[in-house]
Order: sequence, then structure tokens, then C-alpha cells
Amino acid sequence: VLTITRRLLLVSNSTLHGGGYLDHCQTQIQDFFGKDVKRVLFVPYALHDRDSYTKTARDKFRTLGYNVDSIHEASDPVDAVRKAEGIFIGGGNTFRLLKSLYDNKVVTEIRRRVLEDGVPYMGSSAGTNVATISISTTNDMPIVYPPSFSAIGLVPFNINPHYLDPDPNSRHMGETREQRIRQYHEEPDTPCVLGLKEGSMLRVEGHRATLLGTTKARLFSRGQTSVEYDPGSDLSFLLTDAH
Amino acid sequence: VLTITRRLLLVSNSTLHGGGYLDHCQTQIQDFFGKDVKRVLFVPYALHDRDSYTKTARDKFRTLGYNVDSIHEASDPVDAVRKAEGIFIGGGNTFRLLKSLYDNKVVTEIRRRVLEDGVPYMGSSAGTNVATISISTTNDMPIVYPPSFSAIGLVPFNINPHYLDPDPNSRHMGETREQRIRQYHEEPDTPCVLGLKEGSMLRVEGHRATLLGTTKARLFSRGQTSVEYDPGSDLSFLLTDAH
Repeated sequence: VLTITRRLLLVSNSTLHGGGYLDHCQTQIQDFFGKDVKRVLFVPYALHDRDSYTKTARDKFRTLGYNVDSIHEASDPVDAVRKAEGIFIGGGNTFRLLKSLYDNKVVTEIRRRVLEDGVPYMGSSAGTNVATISISTTNDMPIVYPPSFSAIGLVPFNINPHYLDPDPNSRHMGETREQRIRQYHEEPDTPCVLGLKEGSMLRVEGHRATLLGTTKARLFSRGQTSVEYDPGSDLSFLLTDAH
Repeated sequence: VLTITRRLLLVSNSTLHGGGYLDHCQTQIQDFFGKDVKRVLFVPYALHDRDSYTKTARDKFRTLGYNVDSIHEASDPVDAVRKAEGIFIGGGNTFRLLKSLYDNKVVTEIRRRVLEDGVPYMGSSAGTNVATISISTTNDMPIVYPPSFSAIGLVPFNINPHYLDPDPNSRHMGETREQRIRQYHEEPDTPCVLGLKEGSMLRVEGHRATLLGTTKARLFSRGQTSVEYDPGSDLSFLLTDAH
């Protein structure tokens, strides 16, 4: 019952090849935040230069009709979350982002605001990773040590942003993305992983989840063959606890 | 004084495109372990199927003239390290590997055996990552949560195995390897990172380090332009504390 109000826009990537920052998802952003939200609380923790990152987000969101407040400019980050009309967590390094969320003690308050108060949450790349159960399927380097890999937990599965199918012509012998996700599923009690290709995003409204954007997504479940989904697919089954 | 006996062979990758397991470094392996070592202690913790992994390593090492004991077959892993003539830690998932090394309480004993007793240590891929200061520059997914990112610390810098220069033709917008390492260096007090391309390896003898193999390595130092090194390069300066 608590999660019926949940509203999420989980974007694979902030920039699509050949476009500008958030260009590829700007209509979805406007459709998601709508006309009632006037100010969006931006979380720039995933990048080192928070001022510069905030300017980038602020400039883009202004063209879409929203004012941006950055959490790093607030004297009390928890209070900023408590008062937010909408939240946007940007991409960068997922470990740095999650550690900062814990350091600033906002993980629980963001979860409460989104799941209980229905505050709309948008994430991009690392900001999408931290919206899930854990950051265990990030692509990023572990440049800092967070107190846990558990994340905000707004959905009961994991996401791999920037998902790439294996390149059959590659001579590189590092593990493919699929092999890495398979290794995750060798561990006990691991949830399914939605591989969101660049250009795709997941929109969640309560118990309903829909794949949006121009590219596909691939779903990995423990011990099963992966399944590819087209844009427009109904992925609401991912929101049940069995997944 | 303690580290004068240190002997390491740190290989970027276990398999080079078009070759078999450890084929590309087999002459270096024989030159490294030499004729005095008869038995090598293998650590298969980075892969899920330890039995199968041990068979692969055992079969290959037998052709090179060495018997393999696997640490996962020993009743007492610490005692197995204590008695080892040589150590080889294989590749796989670096987080799983480091967590298992801590779970089995062998981190300190491996460090002691290599740095104090001069036991030769070979690592490949993840096994190379854990030989350095930390696993913070691994390429792997954080599929399990280790108690620390600090690693065995046989050298005073970090390594990025399977290093890849940016592909100028890529349309993928995920961070390049270089960008990821630069993000690491935005954090305070981070050591330099040696990017070992597939086909390259680092041989360390006491205070002397030499790049071996058929490909180059790129060295990243905080706040400096990266430098590429050819096979045969003397990299002994990396072993001083200033790096």
C-alpha cells in the first residue's frame, strides 16, 4: 500500500551520442515532472565538481521550465529532501554517489519521500543505480568505499545502465557486460537485473512500469535465458516481490 | 629492507585473443618460478566454480613443469599459504576474490610470505589487482561487499588490468577507462595507476620492476599527463614510496 504513490523516471544515460545533456529524454522529463512541480532538488554527489555539475543541470532544467536547487548548496541536506517537490540524482561515479548519500544521511529520507509522499524521483546513470536495491551492477570503478552496497531501494530489482550487448568482433578479453551480470547471479539471493541500453529509460507509476526511449532493454534473471524488451513494453511484473 | 626479496609476476590478462589459457605468458611463468619451485599454491577464489578453475590451472601448469595445489582443497588455508613454495592467484571477479581472501584470513599471511620470505607471487587480472594497494581500479562489478577495498599491498601503487585506450570511433557514452582512472585521482591521496594492456605484465624483483610482454602500459599519476611505456621499460621508480 505504501508504494502505490511511487513515481520514478530511471534513465540509462545522461547524454546520448551526438546530443546534448539530457536532450534525448527531455520530453519524458517534462511529461514526468509535469506542470505542478516548479523546483527540482538536484543531487550532484556523483561528480567531483558539484558547482559545475549543478550549473549544467540548472541550465538544462531551466529550458524545460523547472528551477533547480542543489542539495550541496543546502545547509541541511536532510531538510532539503524533506521539502523537495521533485528529486533528480545525476550520473557520475556510483560509489562516490552512494557514499555521499550515506555521509549526508539522506538515503532513508529520500526513500521515505518517494515511497510514502509520492515525490517524483528521476535518476540518470549512477542516479538510476542508487534507486535500485543495490549498486552491485554498476559499471563504475570502486574509487571510494561506501558503508554498504545497499541503495535507496525504490524498486525491488537492480539495473545496469549503459547496457551493451557483447561485440562479436571484439578482440578484448575482459568480461562482457552479460558475463559480469551472470557472475552477479552466481551469488545467492540476487534479484533480476534490467540492462538499460543507452537511449532507454524506465518510467514507474505506482505498480506500473513501462520501458521508454528509443532503444531496447535486456532482462537478466537468475538461472534463466535473458529476454529483450522493446520500447513501450509493460514491465510492471518487475515490481512484484518475486522479481 | 624487508621487501628486498619480493618477487612478483603481475599479468594483465589470463587469456590473449586467439590463444589458450596463460599461453601468452608461459615463457615468463617458467622464467619466473624457475626450476626450484615444484609446487604452486593456486587461489581460485575469483571464480564461482573453484574445482573447474583449479583443473584449468593445474592442467596448464603441469605442461610448464609445476604441480598445483589449490587453497580451496586445503583444510587450513592459512597453513597452506605458510607452506607454499609459490603462489598464483587467478582472475575472475575482484570483489569476490578479495572478500574470499579476507573470509579465509589469508591476506596478511600472503603479504608476509611474499615480502618477508620471498615466496614468488604470480597474479593474473583480478589476481594482479589484489596484489596492489587496493582494488579501487578494478574493472569488475561489485557483486559482493568485501570488508575493505584495501588489498594485499605487495607494491605501493595500483594497477588497472585489461587496460584499453579510448576508442575514437565509439558511440558509447559510458566513461572511458581513462576517465574512470581520472575520477579515482580526483579523490585525495590516491596512488598512481599502471594501466596494463592485455598482453603486458610487470615483473618485480626486489626493488626492480620491468614491463614484459608484447603490448604497452600507460601510467596515470595524480594531476599529471599519462605516459605510455614500451615492453622492456624499467619501471623501478614505481616501487619507491613517492609513487
